[in-house]
Amino acid sequence: MSNKPYQLSVKAIITNPGGEFLILKRSSTSKANAGKWEFPGGKLDSGERFEEALKREVAEETGLEIDLMGVAGAGESETPDKRIAYIFIKATVSGGVLEISDEHEDYRWAASSELHKIDFAPQYMDIVRSLL
Amino acid sequence: MSNKPYQLSVKAIITNPGGEFLILKRSSTSKANAGKWEFPGGKLDSGERFEEALKREVAEETGLEIDLMGVAGAGESETPDKRIAYIFIKATVSGGVLEISDEHEDYRWAASSELHKIDFAPQYMDIVRSLL
Repeated sequence: MSNKPYQLSVKAIITNPGGEFLILKRSSTSKANAGKWEFPGGKLDSGERFEEALKREVAEETGLEIDLMGVAGAGESETPDKRIAYIFIKATVSGGVLEISDEHEDYRWAASSELHKIDFAPQYMDIVRSLL
Repeated sequence: MSNKPYQLSVKAIITNPGGEFLILKRSSTSKANAGKWEFPGGKLDSGERFEEALKREVAEETGLEIDLMGVAGAGESETPDKRIAYIFIKATVSGGVLEISDEHEDYRWAASSELHKIDFAPQYMDIVRSLL
């Protein structure tokens, strides 16, 4: 077994009124999964509650404010020195203007029927399958 | 939609070498889900990381030390004033002696084939189904 420490990452599965999902393409200079697609979100800052962390990360990465609608699922990944547990939360846009940060190089709203063609980072495979 | 705040609860799906799952029966005087069965774990204290919170809650509720093995799934529940998101982590026992706290009135190691007969609180239905 692995004794690596676990971190929690909270990710938003944001849908628009047309039922499309907001996905982001990681920068080609990212340390991990460069150029792969993912959902917005990230790790909790020290002492931060998960709802605040998710809203902060989404605002930083997309400029959007979100309402949280429900739990979508979970996932995990492993790096040389830690394990990351993911919790995915369904969300809708409540404000803001979509503009991505330097962390990503592209975004798109993808229909459920397109998700299987997109090159997601491996930790998103299970949640993507559940959205198809 | 609901605008109730979200809390995170971390729960351990602890198995023994025989593949049985450790489940706890909530006290008959519990405010919510009295007498229903559940998995050990609970909410994060302020500023606490999720791995610490899970190990602390399991130690408080069962006397056991655990190793975390992987992410098992997610779930949610709602109370009159908040929503709770659950993340379930697979674990094994690494130390301690099993002794439950006042929060529960019984425990058992249940085989996968027995889980469908057990009266779990509603938020555990999905994760239990995935373990059958």
